Amino acid sequence: MKNYSNIVKELTLEEKASLCSGLDFWHLKGIERLNVPSIMMTDGPHGMRKQRPDANDHLGVFDSVPAICFPSAAGMASSWNREMLFEVGEALGEECVSEQVSVLLGPGVNIKRSPLCGRNFEYFSEDPFLASQLATEQVKGMQTHPIGASLKHFAVNNQEERRMTVDAHVDERTLREIYLAAFEGVVKEAQPATVMSSYNRVNGEYAAESERLLTTILRDEWGFKGAVVSDWGAVNYRVAALKAGLELDMPSNNGYSDTLIVSAVKNGELDEAVVDQAAERVLRLIEMTAPQTNPAQYNKEAHHKLARRVASESMILLKNDAGMLPLKKTENIVVLGELAEKPRYQGSGSSKINPTKIESLLDEMHKSAPDALIKYAAGYDMASDDLSETLIEEAITTAEKADKIILFVGLPDRFESEGYDRHHLRLPDNQLALIERITAIHENVIVLLSNGAPVEMPWEKDVQAIFEVYLGGQAMGGALSDLLYGDVNPSAKLAETFPIKLEDTPAYFNFPGENDVVTYNEGIFVGYRYYDMKAMNTLYPFGHGLSYTEFTYEKMTLSKKNITDKEMVDVEITVRNTGAVAGKEIVQLYVADVKSTVKRPLKELKGFEKIMLNPGEEKTITITLNNRSFSYYDTAIQDWHIESGEFEILVGRSSAQIELKETLTVNSTVLLPLKINRNTTIGDIMLDPRTSEIAKKHFNQSELASNIAKMDFTAETLELGPAMLKNMPLRGLINFSQGYFTEEKLATFLNQLNQV
Amino acid sequence: MKNYSNIVKELTLEEKASLCSGLDFWHLKGIERLNVPSIMMTDGPHGMRKQRPDANDHLGVFDSVPAICFPSAAGMASSWNREMLFEVGEALGEECVSEQVSVLLGPGVNIKRSPLCGRNFEYFSEDPFLASQLATEQVKGMQTHPIGASLKHFAVNNQEERRMTVDAHVDERTLREIYLAAFEGVVKEAQPATVMSSYNRVNGEYAAESERLLTTILRDEWGFKGAVVSDWGAVNYRVAALKAGLELDMPSNNGYSDTLIVSAVKNGELDEAVVDQAAERVLRLIEMTAPQTNPAQYNKEAHHKLARRVASESMILLKNDAGMLPLKKTENIVVLGELAEKPRYQGSGSSKINPTKIESLLDEMHKSAPDALIKYAAGYDMASDDLSETLIEEAITTAEKADKIILFVGLPDRFESEGYDRHHLRLPDNQLALIERITAIHENVIVLLSNGAPVEMPWEKDVQAIFEVYLGGQAMGGALSDLLYGDVNPSAKLAETFPIKLEDTPAYFNFPGENDVVTYNEGIFVGYRYYDMKAMNTLYPFGHGLSYTEFTYEKMTLSKKNITDKEMVDVEITVRNTGAVAGKEIVQLYVADVKSTVKRPLKELKGFEKIMLNPGEEKTITITLNNRSFSYYDTAIQDWHIESGEFEILVGRSSAQIELKETLTVNSTVLLPLKINRNTTIGDIMLDPRTSEIAKKHFNQSELASNIAKMDFTAETLELGPAMLKNMPLRGLINFSQGYFTEEKLATFLNQLNQV
Repeated sequence: MKNYSNIVKELTLEEKASLCSGLDFWHLKGIERLNVPSIMMTDGPHGMRKQRPDANDHLGVFDSVPAICFPSAAGMASSWNREMLFEVGEALGEECVSEQVSVLLGPGVNIKRSPLCGRNFEYFSEDPFLASQLATEQVKGMQTHPIGASLKHFAVNNQEERRMTVDAHVDERTLREIYLAAFEGVVKEAQPATVMSSYNRVNGEYAAESERLLTTILRDEWGFKGAVVSDWGAVNYRVAALKAGLELDMPSNNGYSDTLIVSAVKNGELDEAVVDQAAERVLRLIEMTAPQTNPAQYNKEAHHKLARRVASESMILLKNDAGMLPLKKTENIVVLGELAEKPRYQGSGSSKINPTKIESLLDEMHKSAPDALIKYAAGYDMASDDLSETLIEEAITTAEKADKIILFVGLPDRFESEGYDRHHLRLPDNQLALIERITAIHENVIVLLSNGAPVEMPWEKDVQAIFEVYLGGQAMGGALSDLLYGDVNPSAKLAETFPIKLEDTPAYFNFPGENDVVTYNEGIFVGYRYYDMKAMNTLYPFGHGLSYTEFTYEKMTLSKKNITDKEMVDVEITVRNTGAVAGKEIVQLYVADVKSTVKRPLKELKGFEKIMLNPGEEKTITITLNNRSFSYYDTAIQDWHIESGEFEILVGRSSAQIELKETLTVNSTVLLPLKINRNTTIGDIMLDPRTSEIAKKHFNQSELASNIAKMDFTAETLELGPAMLKNMPLRGLINFSQGYFTEEKLATFLNQLNQV
Repeated sequence: MKNYSNIVKELTLEEKASLCSGLDFWHLKGIERLNVPSIMMTDGPHGMRKQRPDANDHLGVFDSVPAICFPSAAGMASSWNREMLFEVGEALGEECVSEQVSVLLGPGVNIKRSPLCGRNFEYFSEDPFLASQLATEQVKGMQTHPIGASLKHFAVNNQEERRMTVDAHVDERTLREIYLAAFEGVVKEAQPATVMSSYNRVNGEYAAESERLLTTILRDEWGFKGAVVSDWGAVNYRVAALKAGLELDMPSNNGYSDTLIVSAVKNGELDEAVVDQAAERVLRLIEMTAPQTNPAQYNKEAHHKLARRVASESMILLKNDAGMLPLKKTENIVVLGELAEKPRYQGSGSSKINPTKIESLLDEMHKSAPDALIKYAAGYDMASDDLSETLIEEAITTAEKADKIILFVGLPDRFESEGYDRHHLRLPDNQLALIERITAIHENVIVLLSNGAPVEMPWEKDVQAIFEVYLGGQAMGGALSDLLYGDVNPSAKLAETFPIKLEDTPAYFNFPGENDVVTYNEGIFVGYRYYDMKAMNTLYPFGHGLSYTEFTYEKMTLSKKNITDKEMVDVEITVRNTGAVAGKEIVQLYVADVKSTVKRPLKELKGFEKIMLNPGEEKTITITLNNRSFSYYDTAIQDWHIESGEFEILVGRSSAQIELKETLTVNSTVLLPLKINRNTTIGDIMLDPRTSEIAKKHFNQSELASNIAKMDFTAETLELGPAMLKNMPLRGLINFSQGYFTEEKLATFLNQLNQV
């Protein structure tokens, strides 16, 4: 590996500036005279979309070299399988090396704030812990090869509508606990070579110009060592972005932004040391990821097989009444829906891979069950929403005498994509009509759903089994056939909540915002945190997913029942496969703060393990909880904080099915600072052990106030008098202490209180 | 009437300052040497709580002279009867005159943001239009006498928890449309003599110190002519409050705040003209409301009868299955519940009236049906939540062989009061147990509910009829008996939504806030505006209430189908009584903006009439809609604004039962200002007819950008390319126009766009 990062001092100002923007749509500039190569970035995140050198496509979306199309992140997240994400990362890295790609733009860990976001298929979860854990493994896997990941889109980029201008207003606690947490985890655990700043504004400033995000938080707090690259076209004012900590402005703007940097240094607006540092970081990226000459080629077939295995762990069996699945290989099956023949296996936009090959469900079912009678009818036209009576009637005729119907439906590209959001959660009208007509005449209907994000299922009660397929990549057909026939046992669980209807969703009132502002008024209550708190029914809860076998949660043991906020605790959980076939179970651990002065979710995911169990087999796993497992972000101390008290450790098969429960006491070693002024309430100082004694001493100097000293403010229900006094600010004492408290005495009192 | 307000120039600074705070808990100071009397204020709002001169009660809550206790505002609001509120106001005014009370502290028009607020019983509604209309009539009625009303608590005082310190964070549009609108209506229509500033802070400043609220909005915008009085003990820093426009600091602080004012003038902190103006306003109040010597006494019996009539129009028949009600006077009735014998007829706190007499339901039923067999058992102890098996078994035994059971339940004072909020919406455990046990053995159960705000009713399906009685005042027993026996036909409808469970309520995530801040994140979506938008089931919707007769909504006619925002429209509505008895119907008119660029409620109450109809009778009423009926508050222009387009006029019997619908087109004569900069999107300028032509002219100068000029951005669904371009800021053109747009050209372009 050549060392480029030490040559900064040899470069002219113009050369250094030139390193800070693209050569063209995909390449960085090199420095020819010093043999610094021009490296290539390509789109990701679930495959390598390397544009052909000869492509003439301004948007850079078409004409890419063939590569393996893995399931999109929505699907892979449903695997809850850390090792598998690592394997996918390794495979992606290997493909990049073989194609001389230096940086693959992914993974994306933005939180699924609303199912309407058109790009949700590229993101992992509504839960930052799950997103962080899986993306960490993907990045680690990728970076076992000499290429760089690009963790994106940093930050608070949760919609496509007006994404380049919208200002996301989000309070600090929500920012830390929900929208930054996944980035934080990946940066700290996996050190991605680059982080991509997002298009939007956050609390008034462009993410690409936010020194707080790009330097204070990302580098100073989290210790990020790599380079920050802009989303394509995200830079508003280049000099501000560079100062904030954005090293690389992509794509090329024909050197325009370089000239801005040079002028700014020359006119004193910008310190040249900032350019030096940026150039050094870009050079280090080039140094770490410079392509090999004549690299080894990857094994396309092996990678395709991996894609098939990944897909089969990414599809969730949502419903399976009366043992509808798995299919027997002798059953007479009718497959309906154009998607069975022409799969939609990936999302639209910058992540669109040119796959090495594509498996259709129909072909793969024939291979899986060569002797079965499998009939097919399209039922609808994917290119249109309009109902075709001909297609429906053909489907009905085909469906006659079938043992079981497989009805493959899903969303077309025109409904969800990078670049635009959905306005509703419905399937196309012609598909809904097909479902209605088929379920009216058949009682064994299995629905397969191909989509990037949840849809409403008004027909859910009318069908017997449902597989959420998501966008399963190029091997989707085979993986699905494996699952339907039971050659693979389903083991995926939802990484997001499926709501009953759009109006139920947490951000419904504030998505996508108005007047270029979107307020995150639901705060920390995103995904299951919201549905839990509202005690609201969902269609399928976060963490839900079925198997062809049964698992029993036998017991849970805590290594300690009482810890300080500096200690960790090990949770041992024993699970048994009590069914007839081997299978994998995703064991989920949630933590709940039993009583809290700040509003907290009823529970939060803080651990999970996916375990393989043979029939009758029992395993004990250990999940370690740390400080962060119990803390919230306290805005007063600008740090994570645990309130002393009891916490429930909840272990279950989904967020809605908790099977084991234990209680743990955590004692904080940190006392939140006191800030007492004339408008602090009497209740506040009487309830704080640090101040109650000194307060009583003063109150006892006057007859009326001495009554306060005797009151018990801890009761859940207070009578009128004590309730009024509890809420009275200390300034009220001047009226209320028969002359004892004057302004002067109150000032002395406040002084004493603030010194305890 | 003596003229006091012209004597300001004769007063010393100390005398002027002395007028700005109380003499004692209830009196203002007079100026003896100039014969300016000391006038008295007393608590309201649904009766006169004049403390006895000899009372020794610091909180000023006990020992008041007997007065008529009318139903609390929650009940009176359910009458939707403007004329009746006017009559109540007149009666209150007459009582004040006879007791030499100058100012009655009421009515309270705070919005019921959450049913948990302990003081909701004193407020009218979750809807500002309804609250405004009814409070206006009450104030007008009161001020037909030479006394003053005090419109309270101004503003954004929607909880008791930490009410003296909490900072309500509410966005400007929500402030205007929801929390200020009722005050605005009453001030403009009825000119209350005083407005009472509230305890809390609003967006960082104490309401009592908010020049924006007390002067800019209240006086300058709305034209308030009276005096502003503090809530008792609400003043934080007297000089700031005076400057902001708070004339009167109550109660007495022994002259302490007067000395602050004098010092501030002397040291130049405060302009003496401010004190002059305040003194003049207080003197004008004294002048208008100075008590008469030997005033006439009011007719207690006539006022009691009014209270009974008012109560009978305030109780809502929520449910009446199988014609359970009215009772026949021969039926064998068992009345259960201590509330039947010892009514809870008013709320707790400063509004607690010492009634002239009290009617119990039991006594009044015996009077209404002297020949009926009416048995009674207490069933529970109101003073406790604990279940008494003895009381329940006695109730069960008593209930045997009854034709119908009347089960009277409700909330005790310890659950709801001024001074504290509820933490849940449940009835006491012992009452729930009684309901469960009785409904298990009897199929004819009528529940009467006495409470200040909604409760959860998990037993709702198990009973056959429900009356929401609220806190019905001293004649509650008689009024209820009148309704139960059909001597009066129920005609009240809910002025607030009854939710199924607490978690369903709009402010659930943000009530009562934390760290002394409460964020109004639900925004304008309060009450039915929230449940409508979330398509959420309620227990009983806003506007719901049954009658013993039937009404048919025959037709609706608009005087115009197309108006400008400067015109009004008359809506004629014809309703017929198709039942067998005379009755009153509350006809409700809601307006819905069909399509809007800003988020708007699905519908909003903009008109209502209560009409009396004999059996078979038909009447046509006219409701006039004005500019305000269609507008929202636009924060950019800081004014009410109508977006041109279609509006639906929805008329019905409740917010959930719309019977008639018409469409009206309103054309705005106001164009919102353009503010175009480099981050305005291409879509925005292409979709605005003011800018699209000039934009196309520029775009056509470059081949790539000329494609933009041809795109149709109006489509609901756009393809990826157009969608991306629509959201692209104009700065993106520099990269995208093959050199046509430079920074300079872009600047020129922006200039041209901003000049159209």
